Amino acid sequence: MFFEDFQPGEARETGSVTVTKEEILAFGRQFDPQPFHVDEEAARRSPFGGLIASGWHTASLCMRLIVELLGPDSGSLGSPGIDELRWLKPVRPGDELTVHVEVLEAIPSRSKPDRGLVKLHYTMRNQGGEDVMTMIALGLVLRRERS
Amino acid sequence: MFFEDFQPGEARETGSVTVTKEEILAFGRQFDPQPFHVDEEAARRSPFGGLIASGWHTASLCMRLIVELLGPDSGSLGSPGIDELRWLKPVRPGDELTVHVEVLEAIPSRSKPDRGLVKLHYTMRNQGGEDVMTMIALGLVLRRERS
Repeated sequence: MFFEDFQPGEARETGSVTVTKEEILAFGRQFDPQPFHVDEEAARRSPFGGLIASGWHTASLCMRLIVELLGPDSGSLGSPGIDELRWLKPVRPGDELTVHVEVLEAIPSRSKPDRGLVKLHYTMRNQGGEDVMTMIALGLVLRRERS
Repeated sequence: MFFEDFQPGEARETGSVTVTKEEILAFGRQFDPQPFHVDEEAARRSPFGGLIASGWHTASLCMRLIVELLGPDSGSLGSPGIDELRWLKPVRPGDELTVHVEVLEAIPSRSKPDRGLVKLHYTMRNQGGEDVMTMIALGLVLRRERS
């Protein structure tokens, strides 16, 4: 996927990923050791009623699905940031997640003609079709045709 | 840290974390397998000139520093989302990162008097004092005094 491949209004679906209890606990212990991410018993007594994934774990799984969609030889030059991210529903052990990607904008760079900025809207859904996370992500992408 | 402890204008510093090459590679392989996160040789030839951490790895390390600052018995009820996140500088192996946290707003909940919404500005800096990431994060927090 290069800059030319991002057409505003176009949409795609990623593959899916299933998140396990062990992965939720491991990510939580490493990066987000709040009780409802790392302690099953404390999570049961929390307002969530059970273990839930760190939002950063959910976002990282979203990234993996996006990278798999773009492919290993994409023109990605990384991302300057995220304009808005919302965690809408808890992600729980066994949830199967997919991402709907829509191209919002594709802006050629003025200073560097070999690249452009793309603005993408991600909607991550669980196996029940519920939106669990949305995000507006920015990406710098090379053109396929670089003169 | 409970809702009463978040006073707009107040600021705090977290502890620090040093990120290793092995951690950058492991996170990249699991969540963000772009060449400049998982392949040292390809990273050297990339515009970054060497291996850099996935932005989601950097954000997850930021979360760990924040959780350590808030402490294990905080009133955190999780986060509805992020209003703006910017990755400003690459994070490289050996970088030592700290986070400056400033309270932007603290808004009591109208519907649930036992909690409130806090809006926090994070600035993550490396050992050279350069800003590597900024973020406006939302958090739901219980009051210490719940009637």
